[in-house]
Amino acid sequence: MKPKLTLVGAGPGDPDLISLKGVKALSNADVVLYDALVHPDLLDYCSENTLKIFVGKRAGLHSYQQRQINQLIVKHALPQGHVVRLKGGDPFIFGRGQEEIEYAETFGIETAIVPGISSINLPGYYGIPLTRRGVNESFWVITATTRSGQLSRDVKLATQTSATVVLLMGLKKLSTIVEVFKQAGKESLPMAVISKGSLPEGSLLTGTVDEIEKLVKKEKPTAPALIVLGETVGAHPEFYLKAEHLKSELLEKL
Amino acid sequence: MKPKLTLVGAGPGDPDLISLKGVKALSNADVVLYDALVHPDLLDYCSENTLKIFVGKRAGLHSYQQRQINQLIVKHALPQGHVVRLKGGDPFIFGRGQEEIEYAETFGIETAIVPGISSINLPGYYGIPLTRRGVNESFWVITATTRSGQLSRDVKLATQTSATVVLLMGLKKLSTIVEVFKQAGKESLPMAVISKGSLPEGSLLTGTVDEIEKLVKKEKPTAPALIVLGETVGAHPEFYLKAEHLKSELLEKL
Repeated sequence: MKPKLTLVGAGPGDPDLISLKGVKALSNADVVLYDALVHPDLLDYCSENTLKIFVGKRAGLHSYQQRQINQLIVKHALPQGHVVRLKGGDPFIFGRGQEEIEYAETFGIETAIVPGISSINLPGYYGIPLTRRGVNESFWVITATTRSGQLSRDVKLATQTSATVVLLMGLKKLSTIVEVFKQAGKESLPMAVISKGSLPEGSLLTGTVDEIEKLVKKEKPTAPALIVLGETVGAHPEFYLKAEHLKSELLEKL
Repeated sequence: MKPKLTLVGAGPGDPDLISLKGVKALSNADVVLYDALVHPDLLDYCSENTLKIFVGKRAGLHSYQQRQINQLIVKHALPQGHVVRLKGGDPFIFGRGQEEIEYAETFGIETAIVPGISSINLPGYYGIPLTRRGVNESFWVITATTRSGQLSRDVKLATQTSATVVLLMGLKKLSTIVEVFKQAGKESLPMAVISKGSLPEGSLLTGTVDEIEKLVKKEKPTAPALIVLGETVGAHPEFYLKAEHLKSELLEKL
């Protein structure tokens, strides 16, 4: 029995969005350490003898520190063999996968990586392309909540570009984000809030920078949520049909 | 028989990196239109009766225009039923999937989307995180080859940030890219060239902005290639072991 750690990306919610390689890793696992954002059905791919340990955060319950998860991986891999660390999305896109790999390797544990479909694939899933020929050539992915608790300085820089801006963990910082884009003169920029990923309860909300806060207050999308800002959002029917509806309401009043 | 188009992301090379949902779509396809970057083994998930049409680019052969692909989708979906459009990576990350969806919908064809693991997941696959706590909070994905043939203006803006910069289709523009980063005073910035994705012949090359052209000339990585620039590349053993080797060579000469 050889100690091994495989980091597996579980994908963005829908259990059918895991890769075949991820399923194979789960079926060969002696121990699985899994997060709160991982769909419970995925654990069915493990054998009956696989030890399944929940290490995610849940409201009101004790949650593991990254340091404790690192230690759990080593504690189980050394005597028990193959540990699969199952993480929501992709383990390397804001997933802190590298910290777990490096810690395990200092104990001589073999490591492997199975990427996952990330939450940054969700705009496409909802029909919002991140780039569009003739409109823009890039997208910029930023975590809204930095270590210091402040909004990342990159958000302000991003307002000066034509990049589609994708913000993770930004729902609580929505007012600040809106303010930064308004100050840059981008109050009419189309934006979207995608809540609950690819799960059946997932939802899409679109509007301009100016109106999004009112819409969020009404519709109440919940975390985890992805915020997307950019001209490519404007091509989505949810956005332009709403805009046309507002325009015709306005015309009727005239 | 109902006409339907499903856009499926095939993933970044390794056929086991397609999602379960992608496999299910293939097994229900009446017609599959597939790209050059799609692994041939994936077509084995189709039934024997599925019509398989290659629409990718191959050296020396006729290649389809986007307009022709759009028309092929409609031409087959209307009389034959379920068309699966199988694309390398993710259909919405520089994949022009939106254009195919919109064209099909104008003919009243039902559409569905199955995201895929994108080439932007490859840095993680090779042990290079795109972000790292305490180092940076974002990554910026830019297509190096724009419609006009010029290097995107966003690349120059990106040199002013701490974002990890991920460039697609940039191998032929390497000299220009290196020049832009040198002009910004970033000649020591770690960078990586990832060639051939997650395929067995895939390779990783790392070095500083200053030295990468010499290394590429020597190792000759081939397209499709991903170029990554940022401090997070510096944590990769391929980078820092090479740096230490160069340092000790230098010390010996003193």
